[in-house]
Order: sequence, then structure tokens, then C-alpha cells
Amino acid sequence: MDDDMESGSLGPYQDKPRTFPNMRSKAYTPLIFRILLGINTRVLFMLLLLGLGAVFYVGASTSPILVFVFSVCILSFLVSIYLTKWVLAKDEGPPEMVQISDAIRDGAEGFFRTQYSSISKMAMLLALVILCIYLFRSTTPQQESSGLGRSSSAYITVAAFLLGALCSGIAGYVGMWVSVRANVRVSSAARRSAREALQVATRAGGLSALVVVGMAVLGIAILYATFYVWLGVDTPGAMKVTDLPLLLVGYGFGASFVALFAQLGGGIYTKAADVGADLVGKVEQGIPEDDPRNPAVIADLVGDNVGDCAARGADLFESIAAEIISAMILGGTMAQRCKIDPSGFILFPLVVHSFDLVVSSVGIFSIRGTRESGVKAPIEDPMTILQKGYSITIVLAVLTFGLSTRWLLYTEQAPSAWFNFALCGLIGIITAYIFVWITKYYTDYKHEPVRAIALSSSTGHGTNIIAGVSLGLESTALPVLVISVSIVSAFWLGHSSGLVDEAGNPTGGLFGTAVATMGMLSTAAYVLTMDMFGPIADNAGGIVEMSQQPESVREITDVLDAVGNTTKATTKGFAIGSAALASFLLFSAYMDEVSAFAHEPLKQVDIAIPEVFVGGLLGSMLIFLFSAWACSAVGRTAQEVVNEVRRQFIERPGIMEYKEKPDYGRCVAIVASASLREMIKPGALAIISPIVVGFLFRILGYYTGHPLLGAKVVAAFLMFATVSGILMALFLNTAGGAWDNAKKYIETGALGGKGSDAHKAAVTGDTVGDPFKDTAGPSLHVVIKMLATITLVMAPVFL
Amino acid sequence: MDDDMESGSLGPYQDKPRTFPNMRSKAYTPLIFRILLGINTRVLFMLLLLGLGAVFYVGASTSPILVFVFSVCILSFLVSIYLTKWVLAKDEGPPEMVQISDAIRDGAEGFFRTQYSSISKMAMLLALVILCIYLFRSTTPQQESSGLGRSSSAYITVAAFLLGALCSGIAGYVGMWVSVRANVRVSSAARRSAREALQVATRAGGLSALVVVGMAVLGIAILYATFYVWLGVDTPGAMKVTDLPLLLVGYGFGASFVALFAQLGGGIYTKAADVGADLVGKVEQGIPEDDPRNPAVIADLVGDNVGDCAARGADLFESIAAEIISAMILGGTMAQRCKIDPSGFILFPLVVHSFDLVVSSVGIFSIRGTRESGVKAPIEDPMTILQKGYSITIVLAVLTFGLSTRWLLYTEQAPSAWFNFALCGLIGIITAYIFVWITKYYTDYKHEPVRAIALSSSTGHGTNIIAGVSLGLESTALPVLVISVSIVSAFWLGHSSGLVDEAGNPTGGLFGTAVATMGMLSTAAYVLTMDMFGPIADNAGGIVEMSQQPESVREITDVLDAVGNTTKATTKGFAIGSAALASFLLFSAYMDEVSAFAHEPLKQVDIAIPEVFVGGLLGSMLIFLFSAWACSAVGRTAQEVVNEVRRQFIERPGIMEYKEKPDYGRCVAIVASASLREMIKPGALAIISPIVVGFLFRILGYYTGHPLLGAKVVAAFLMFATVSGILMALFLNTAGGAWDNAKKYIETGALGGKGSDAHKAAVTGDTVGDPFKDTAGPSLHVVIKMLATITLVMAPVFL
Repeated sequence: MDDDMESGSLGPYQDKPRTFPNMRSKAYTPLIFRILLGINTRVLFMLLLLGLGAVFYVGASTSPILVFVFSVCILSFLVSIYLTKWVLAKDEGPPEMVQISDAIRDGAEGFFRTQYSSISKMAMLLALVILCIYLFRSTTPQQESSGLGRSSSAYITVAAFLLGALCSGIAGYVGMWVSVRANVRVSSAARRSAREALQVATRAGGLSALVVVGMAVLGIAILYATFYVWLGVDTPGAMKVTDLPLLLVGYGFGASFVALFAQLGGGIYTKAADVGADLVGKVEQGIPEDDPRNPAVIADLVGDNVGDCAARGADLFESIAAEIISAMILGGTMAQRCKIDPSGFILFPLVVHSFDLVVSSVGIFSIRGTRESGVKAPIEDPMTILQKGYSITIVLAVLTFGLSTRWLLYTEQAPSAWFNFALCGLIGIITAYIFVWITKYYTDYKHEPVRAIALSSSTGHGTNIIAGVSLGLESTALPVLVISVSIVSAFWLGHSSGLVDEAGNPTGGLFGTAVATMGMLSTAAYVLTMDMFGPIADNAGGIVEMSQQPESVREITDVLDAVGNTTKATTKGFAIGSAALASFLLFSAYMDEVSAFAHEPLKQVDIAIPEVFVGGLLGSMLIFLFSAWACSAVGRTAQEVVNEVRRQFIERPGIMEYKEKPDYGRCVAIVASASLREMIKPGALAIISPIVVGFLFRILGYYTGHPLLGAKVVAAFLMFATVSGILMALFLNTAGGAWDNAKKYIETGALGGKGSDAHKAAVTGDTVGDPFKDTAGPSLHVVIKMLATITLVMAPVFL
Repeated sequence: MDDDMESGSLGPYQDKPRTFPNMRSKAYTPLIFRILLGINTRVLFMLLLLGLGAVFYVGASTSPILVFVFSVCILSFLVSIYLTKWVLAKDEGPPEMVQISDAIRDGAEGFFRTQYSSISKMAMLLALVILCIYLFRSTTPQQESSGLGRSSSAYITVAAFLLGALCSGIAGYVGMWVSVRANVRVSSAARRSAREALQVATRAGGLSALVVVGMAVLGIAILYATFYVWLGVDTPGAMKVTDLPLLLVGYGFGASFVALFAQLGGGIYTKAADVGADLVGKVEQGIPEDDPRNPAVIADLVGDNVGDCAARGADLFESIAAEIISAMILGGTMAQRCKIDPSGFILFPLVVHSFDLVVSSVGIFSIRGTRESGVKAPIEDPMTILQKGYSITIVLAVLTFGLSTRWLLYTEQAPSAWFNFALCGLIGIITAYIFVWITKYYTDYKHEPVRAIALSSSTGHGTNIIAGVSLGLESTALPVLVISVSIVSAFWLGHSSGLVDEAGNPTGGLFGTAVATMGMLSTAAYVLTMDMFGPIADNAGGIVEMSQQPESVREITDVLDAVGNTTKATTKGFAIGSAALASFLLFSAYMDEVSAFAHEPLKQVDIAIPEVFVGGLLGSMLIFLFSAWACSAVGRTAQEVVNEVRRQFIERPGIMEYKEKPDYGRCVAIVASASLREMIKPGALAIISPIVVGFLFRILGYYTGHPLLGAKVVAAFLMFATVSGILMALFLNTAGGAWDNAKKYIETGALGGKGSDAHKAAVTGDTVGDPFKDTAGPSLHVVIKMLATITLVMAPVFL
């Protein structure tokens, strides 16, 4: 790809360092993968069996439920190994495709390595900070009574944090690893049939989805079981099982921490490359998207992998981890208050996600190649096929969810409680479904809103932007109404479940909300599959375009790409909906945690106190500032790309006539180093500001005789940031998606079609929407949950 | 102006009704003005004296402080009558100017009449609703003990509401009345000297500022005195004086109600006309702004008067009214708790604003014509002159504020409390100053942020918008930090003032925040003067441009216009800062009100309760939805204007060669009827949603055994809406102002200057910023305070 990169031709840029000298080496595989691939299959199998035995031993000495969880996770890993083999067995197509795919893979792997080495350094630093904080903090009465000393609590938290960070990194890596290998195989399959291309893309997406979800469940289960055995939980004088989940919060924070930087770095990368490529290519030079003459096109395709696949994998991983841990904490607290057997309530989230793996696998396998129907069968609507799979998954999820509630949440104290909780789960599943529907309504050009944007493009760039911003702001209303109804109704279902504490007060309300959240996430693996499908199809389209395949192949990948856009948008709706529900859980978990540390109950966060109100104001402000920095990072990086692309077009006039090859590598290097630089500022802001706010108000509270002020202010900070974050993310995602599809609608020939003034205005909207929907918006999903986990872990600082 | 409007030439549009047939009549004056102008000056003087006597009698039988307030208000009205005569005595210039000015005046007055007749109908309806609610609600124990029956309380609230609405309407009318008369006089004065033009514009602005502030103070003072005498307050068995301010909340709500629709209608009008005129005129046809060939130009100039002058008058009126009333409530509550003489604390806000009238008058008169320096003196920077006046006003305000605190807030219980409160006032004044400075930093092209937007325009429309949005989002950070510091520090100054309740707990905290708010607003009349100066100068520039005056005259008005843009932007910063501070007061007043009605203390709003959290979520959502609807209203109306202007250019090809006169009247009529239609939806949303939310959750609370749930949910709704509203308004105002000035910066010749691609991109940003900064942003200021007053008045519905 880069054989013509004689440095002599770079002129004044020659002296600048080239990042990623290894980027152009073939197929980098990390050491652990090389070892795993190197050893004999039978040895691997033996090792696996041994490991399993150990895991099962630990599981069996804690709870049979854990054995079930372990079994399902291992099964799902076997399924994903099968899927890997199946996908890798597909052919990679002609050499010109392989060449492009190699360039994409090298770029993606190079960026991934540099990015994750920065992230891991920051994670180590943070681990040290956490260690120090925990070594000097006070312990909770429960810990004291169970003999869990300061230092062991510190090491446990740090170990959990590092494991969470590591697993999140692996989740991202797997997502990227699969997508850079699947893209060319989808392109190649598209030469044969649409159905086969669809199947390859779904199975590749499914494989990483299963790994991501499976790893989240397995990691928590292993940590739980290890701590259980190690600390001798529930033996006399030792820790109680209901306090165990609090030890896991470090895992969630580690996962969020990595996900935040993965999403920021990847998001800035993908959109800076995309915007930069479009601004010069499409707008100035008038060449099509993914045209091989555009020097930024490889960077754009690399971006899909690092920004969408890797980042979304890490994002969903931390969503599930955070949600499981907070639900475990709440289940434990509730069981303790009601004096009922806690293990079912604590382990319930793990079981729900185990079933998620099962039902989603069924959904993934329901999408078949049906190659027998002939090579040149007419293209079916892939959306229908994916939707059918989703329907199957949802129906099965409802059944297994009911089963799990009956199995684990049945208690003699309240015989009908499980049924109430099953209804809560149903609320969650329905909420997820409505969310997906609303997002589709606002972002699909079959419906009124996007058409209104398209129409407003005909009066110019300005009215296009005004219409898009209005639509984005407006689109927050329905999701908020839905989430409000589901929070309140799930809470009341839980409240009236019959579970009461010793004083006879109903206590199941919060757990009801938790169950609804689990219901919402009970099809997460399938949703993630659909989400991963998007960038793979997008990449496949790019490869087909760049390798100049015949029109019929392009048609197939175009259809897949369009479907991928819709699934990407709808899964964002899903992600934000679950974040909204989960945030309320995490907030409650935070209150429990603070109560435990502070040796006194923190039951209320009263916004009538000025400091608490100020905390809320600062929390909301964080969201605005974070979004600002995320968007401007893309803008700045895109300007660097624009300047580089313009320079290449000027210095190599042969590019436009296909006589000279553009220097793709330089664009990749520029985007990579810029996005690594730019991800630090917003990321650090999100991590440092809650700590600073909590610490400052703790000191203020100390001097003004106001105990717990720091913790209360942080609670308000968290709550207001969550609410603003949900709204801002909805706004950014929907506006971006709608602008994108308004442009696509005009490209179908409406309002003058491609090249018209309306189209130019629509391209402006699309450009503005890019950082909204793929950088700032998805990063906010992570920020919302990261704030919750960071406040959980850092609670000792605020007290 | 409209002599060539043969309906025959309208073609297919002929059958559409023409709005405002009277619009083209000369100088409409309302009945009351005609009567006032008709009667003999001596009779008027006698009547005035009689009225004064009555007012003084009432004042004297309540408190000598009120006599001071009345005297100052009457003095300031005399000053404004002097200013009116002075401004009207200026010549109106040559007939071509008068002709244009007449067209503007007719359009503005026609729109005002139609708009306010809609608003008054809605106000009557709402008055009926309030009456019904109050007739069926329960009374507070205090009211029962004082013998204030249900029906008298209902009539009092409704009367206060209607008076507030009426005064707000008059404030808007005066603002508009002055500006449509001053604009042409400023144009004419610009032919002689820049200094004189500046003086005319400032005095005209000052005249309406004094009327607006004076009326707010006088209205409340009269209501207070009347209720005091009528209800026999502080006589045995009657109402206590500390409960009196709660009866005034209706006044604040009436003022906010009118201000909301005035700002929405006017804001939509002005920006739809502006955007529509620019899109076709500047972008498509390439003719300059305010070119007489543009059919929408008169509508644009009318918009400045109805959108900026009338609406901002009503806005500041309700700000001051709401702030005075809430501070009175808090002062009364605190005095009652501390068992000290309440009158000083209750009447303190009225005195502060009386001094505001005095010091601002001095500031206004400090801007002199200095005609002796010769007709063709070099143009001084008008900003320096205005700033000098502001500095004089601020110094005097600090002095009088200190004086007022010593006079009214000195109490033997805590001899140094007054000094703490004086410091609180100082904090407020400094906050106002910093706010103005921050706004200037982010919106003035002398500084980095705006230049960054200009630079990003050089890479296209898309990067310009991304940069502007990022800048707007980022600009929320500093103001929030400043407001946080001032809330917390003013609270602690008040807290440590030495004022304690019977149990020895410090109670002065909230009142400290209230005093800081008053400090912030203690130069309101001068700030309003600078704000009114903007649209008057803008209009004068338009008249000069349209009447094709020589270049030297245009230069003068251009300089004034540029200064006006800066002062407009900075006063928006001031308005949002005071709204942020005032909202916390109003929130506390709401808690007091609910406690009084509910017969039990409501001291906490606990966001850990799911319903309360949902209330917050809905409150934030309201802000997003409201902004969406406000922006899209402008977008839709602007499209109508674009279509009409395009139609005129096509049907009357002679327009471009000055051979045919465009049909200005049709554009005015289209914008007017569209903006009246479009203002209803967002306005109704803001008014109805808190009532619906409170009522629904009240019912839910009733069925789930959760008392006060409705009131608590509304409290969270209010708080989250306030926080989101502050941030959103800051974002919208700053982004809009920065885009505007980035365009202006490029027009100075930077980055290719006028006509370059960068300039085109900057014009797009300016267009997008228009509805942000002049429709949605300022409307949000009103919404924030309206929500507070509506929840105060509607509290009985939620209980």
C-alpha cells in the first residue's frame, strides 16, 4: 500500500517524525495471541480443562448458581471460537482487496497499540493513586468486624480495578481484531451473494459480542468467587456475603476508565479522518466517498474499526459490568434488610447475562446464509432479517428472564415477589424496544423528522443546521418520558412486591429498578452484534469501492452499509437508555457505599442546600464542557487532515488522474498522533473533576461544621451530570444520525439529488453531525457510568 | 412606503388575507396615551399631585421607607418625562428617513397590538384558572388566624397577577414606543456628530430603562402598601407583615407570563425576518444587509424593535419583580425566625432598586453630547464612553448599597450583620462585572475564541459550526464557576452574620444569597440602558443605509451598531447571571410557600427518591424541548420569508435595478402572523408542563401514600430545569454572539475578507446563531424565572 512512500517526495515535512514505523508490518499479533496460536490444540484443550476445573471448584464452594454461570460463559467462548474459525475460513478475495484490508489492519492495530499503551500507563498511575487513598482511609465497621484490614481492602480494590481495565482492553481488542479481519471477508462474500455477506458480517459481530458480554460476566463471577473463598465469607467472624459486591466496584471503574479513553481516542480518530476526508474530497474536489484518490481514505476506514468496533466493545463491556455490580450491591443490601437468603438476589444479574449469551447466540445463528437459493438471488432487505433475529432473541429473553426470576428471586417471605420482578424485567425489555423505535423514528428518512431537515436544506446551510439542532433537542422528549415511566413503574412494582424490612417498610423498590435495567440489557449481546455489524459493513463497502469492484457488488455493500447506519443509530438509543436506567442504580449504590464508610446513613441528597445545588450546577457544567472539548478535538484534528490532504493534492497533481498514489500512511499517522493527544484533555476532565469537587467540599464542610458535605455535593454532581448527560447524548446522537440520513435521503434523488445546493447544505449538516454522533455522544454514555463508578471507588476521598 | 402595493401584482397570493390592515396608518397611539396627551399640562400636574398624595398617605401609614421609595420612583418618572421631551425635541431628519421610520413604526406598533391582544386574552384565561384554583384550595394556618378568607386570597392573587401582566405589557410598550421614535432621531443626529447620536441613543434607552425599573418597584410598593392598609396588617388578630410578601407572587407571575410571550413572539419575529432577509439577500443575491431592494428589510428593522426593545423591557421588568418579591419573602421569613423587626429586611429590595434608579440616572446623564467640540470631531470609541458611565454607576451603586444595608439591615441582635450583607452585595456587583467580562471574552473578536471560529471557517461551513458549538458549550464553564463561588460565599457570609433563630442556629444564609442577587441587579437600569442602546443604534444604521446617506454618516452608525452588538451580548450575560442567582432564591421561596400551605415543613428535596429524580429528568428535558421549539419556530418562519422574498425577486425583476419597489408590507405581515402562531407552542409548553407534572405526581403520591410528592417532584423539576436552563442559555447566547462576531471579524478583511469562502462559512454560522442568541437564549432567561413564579402561584395544585 505504501511502497511509493519515498520520503524524498515529502518535501518540507521530511523532518517530522513518522509515527508507527511498524504500522506497515504485516499482521501484528500480540504475544499472548501468538503463544495461544502457537501451542498445540490438544495442550490448549488440556489447559482449558484444568482452568475450568479450578474455576468450577471455586464456583462449587460458593454457590451452584455460579457453576451455571461459569458453564454458560465457557460454552459461549466455545461458540465464539467456532464463529472465529468459521469467519476466518472465509476467503479474503482478490489481492487488491487483501492489500487494502492489510493497510486498514495495520493502521488499526498500530493505533490500538499506541493508544492502549498510553491508557495502560494512565491506568497504572491511577492504580497507585487508588492504592494510596485506600491505605490511608478509614475502614467500615463491617470490614473491621470481618477482619478485612486496610491494606487487604486496598489491594482488593486495586486488583479489581486493574482486572477491569485489562478485561475492558481485551474486549476492545477483540472487537477490533475481528472487524479488521471480517471486513475483507464480507467484501469478498458480497461478490457472491448479499445473504452470505450479511451472514459473515453478523457472525463476526456476534463473535466479538459474545466475547465482550461473556468476559464481563466471567470476570465478575471469578472475582466474586475468589473473594468469597479467600475471605472465607459467611463463616463466623468473617465478612458477610451482602458486603461482598462492594469490593467489586473497582472492576467497574477499571472497565469505565479504559472505555472512556478508548471511546474518546477512537471517536476522535474516526471522525477527524471522516470529516477531513469529506471536506477536501467530497466538498472541494467533488470525488466520491471512499475514493482511492483521497489520501485520507485509509485513515477513515481505520477509524471505523478503532472508533466503532474497539470503542463500542469497551463501552458495552463497561455498561454491563457497571450494571451487574450495582445490581449486586442493591440486591445484597435489600436481602440483608429483609433478612432473606441473599445469594439469589446477589447472583441474579450474572444469571440474567448468562441467559443473554444463550438467547443472543440463538438469535445470531438464526441468520443463515441460505446459499442454496442461488448465487444471484434478489437482495432481501437485510434489516428485516436482522429484525427477525432480534425478535427471536427478545421472545427467548422474556422467557428466560421469567425463568430466572422464578428460580432466584422466589422467597417464602414474599411468594409473589418474583412475579413483580419478572414484570420489572418486562418493563425493561419493552423500554429497550421503544427506545430503538424512537431512535429509528427520528433518524430514519422514512419518517417526517429527517425529511424536514432535508427540506430545510433547500433554503441553505444555515436552515439545515437550525433544523438539525432543533430536531436533536426535540428528540430528547420522548425517551425521557419513556424512561420516567419505566423508572417509576419498576420502582413501584418492586416496592409493592411484598418484600419488607424488619420494621415492615417495603424495601424492594430500588431492586425493581435494577431488575428493569437488567431486562433492558438482557439482549445486550444481540444488540452489540447489530452494532458491530455496522462498521464491518461500512468497511467492507470501503474496500469494495477502493478495489473498484463491479457495480453489482457495490450495490450489495451499499445496502448493508445503509442498514449498518440504522443499526448503529438504534443501538446508541439502546446504550443511552440503559445508561439512564443504570445511572439511577449506581447512584443508589453510591449512597449505600457512603453510608457504609461514613458509619452513618446517607439517605438524602437535599438540593435545597446551596453547596449541594452548586454541586449539581458543576455536574451539569461538566457535561457541557466535556462535549465541547470532545467536539473541538475533532474539529482541530480534522483541520490538520484537511491541510495534509490539500498539501498532497497540490504537491502530487497526478493523484487526481490516478497517476500518482496518495500517501495514505501520513494521514493515518497524523490522525493517530493527533487523536492520542486530543483524548487526554476531555478524559482527564471527566476523571479529575468529581474528585476535585468532592475533596474541596469535604474540606469546606470540615471548616463549616457540615459533616458529609463532600459526599452530598458529589451525589448532586453525579445526579445532575447524569441527567444532563442523558439529554446531551440523546441530542448529539439523534441530531448526528438525522443529519447523516437527511443527506442520504437527498442522495436518493430527492430535492435535486446529489450535487444540488440542497445536497451541499446537507453535507454540511452531516459533517457537523459526525463528531456529535460518533465522538461526543458515545463518550457521554461512558462518562455517565464512569462518574458513577469513580465516585463509588473514590468515596473515601469525600468523607 | 407601500404605495405600490397593487394587489393585482400579487398573483397567486391575492386570495390570502392581509394581516394588519391598519398597520399602514400613521402613528397609532393607544387611548390612554391619547387622553394623557390631550389634557392640559396643569390638569395633569394636579392629578399627579393628587395621586401622589394618596400614595404618600398609604406609604406613610405603613412605613417611612415606603415614602422614600415612592419619592424616588416619582422623581425617576419625572426624569424620564424630561428625557422623553428631550429625545422627541430632536429633529427627525429629511423626509426619506421619516418615511422609513414611519414604516418601521407602523410595523412595530401593528405587531405589538396584535401580539398583546393575544397575550391579554391568554392572561385573562389564566386569571380565571388561578381564581378557580384558589377558590377551591385550602388556606394556610396563618391566613386562617388572620381571617383572610379563601375568596379574598383568591382575588388578591388574581389582582396581583393581572397588575403584573399589565405593568409588564406597559414596560414592553414603552420600550418599543421609545425605540421606534428614537431610531430616526439617532440617524439624523449621526449626520451632525457621532457624539450627539450616541447621546440621543443612550438617553432614549435610559428613558425606557428608568420607566421599566421604576414601574417594577412602584408596582410592588403600591401593592404592598395597599394590602398592608387594607388587611390591617400587624394589628391584633390580623395578618403578620412577614406573611405579606407571599401575597405578591401573583405580580411576579403576571410579569413573567407576559414577558415569556413577548420574548418568544418578538424573538421569533426578529430572527425569522433577519435570517430570511440574509438567506436570500446576502447569500443568494449578494446584496448588502439593510439594502432597500430586499423586500424583507423593513420586517428585519421592525424586528429589532419588537424583539429586542419591547421584549427585553418586559424581560428585565419581570427579572426585577421576581427578584424583589422572592427577596422580600426570604427577608420576612428570616426576620420572623430571628424575632427581629422585619420591616427593614422586607423593604430592603425596594430601597436597593430605588437607589438603582438614582445612580443609573447619574450614569445616563454622565454621557454628554459635548457639541462644542465641533461638528466633525474625530469619532471617539463609544464603548469607552459607555464603559465610563458604567464605572460611575457601579462606584455609586457600591456606596449606596453600603448605605442601604447600614440603614435597613442593622439590628441590635447582630450588630455586624449589615456589614456581612454589604459584602454579599459587593459579591453580587463583582459577579455581574465578571459575567460581563467573560461574555466579552467569548464574543468579542479581539480575543482568541472568536478568532478560532473565524479560522475554522476557512476549512468550510462544517468546521465553522463545529467550532461555534464547541465554543458555546465550553463558555458555560467559567460563568458556572463564578456563580458557584458567589452562591457559596454569599451564603456563608449571610450564615455567619450573627443572625440566629430562637434555637441559636444561624439563619442568615439564604438572605445573604438574596442580597448578592440584589447587588448584581443594583445597576440594572444602566445595564438596560446599554441594552436598549443596541437595537436603537442598529435601527438607526438601517435607516441611514436605506435612505442612502453619505459614507461618513454610515461610518458613524456602523461604529454605534458594532458597540450595540457588544453591549447586547454582555447584557445577556448579566441577565443570565442574575437569573441564576435569583432562581436559587425563588426556589427557597417556593419551599417556604409549600411549607406554609402544607401545614408541615418542606425543608428537603431528596433526589434519591425515584419520582423526584424523574421530576428532575423531566425538568431538564423541558429546557431542551423548549429550545428546540423556539429554534424550529424561527427556522420555519424564516423559510416562509425566504419563499416570499424569492417570489418577489422573480415576479418583480425590476427590484434589483431599483426600478420597482419591493412589497415590504407583505413580508411584515407574513412574519407577524407566523411569529404569533409559532410563539404559542413553546410558551404553552413552559407554562403547562410544571402544572401537569406537579398534578400527576400529586395524584400518584395520593395513591401510594406519599404526602407532598407532587410538591417535591415540582421542586426537583424546577431545580433541574433551572440548572439546565442556565447552561443552555449560556451556550445559545455565547455561540450566537461568537458566530456573529467571527463573521464581523472576517468582514474586517481577515482570512480573505468579504466574499471569500471563509466569509460564506461565517455567514452560515451567523445565521445559525441568530435564533440561538435572540430567540431561544433570551426566552430561556424568562422561562427560568417564570417556572419559579408559576410553581409559587400554582403550589396549591401540587398539594
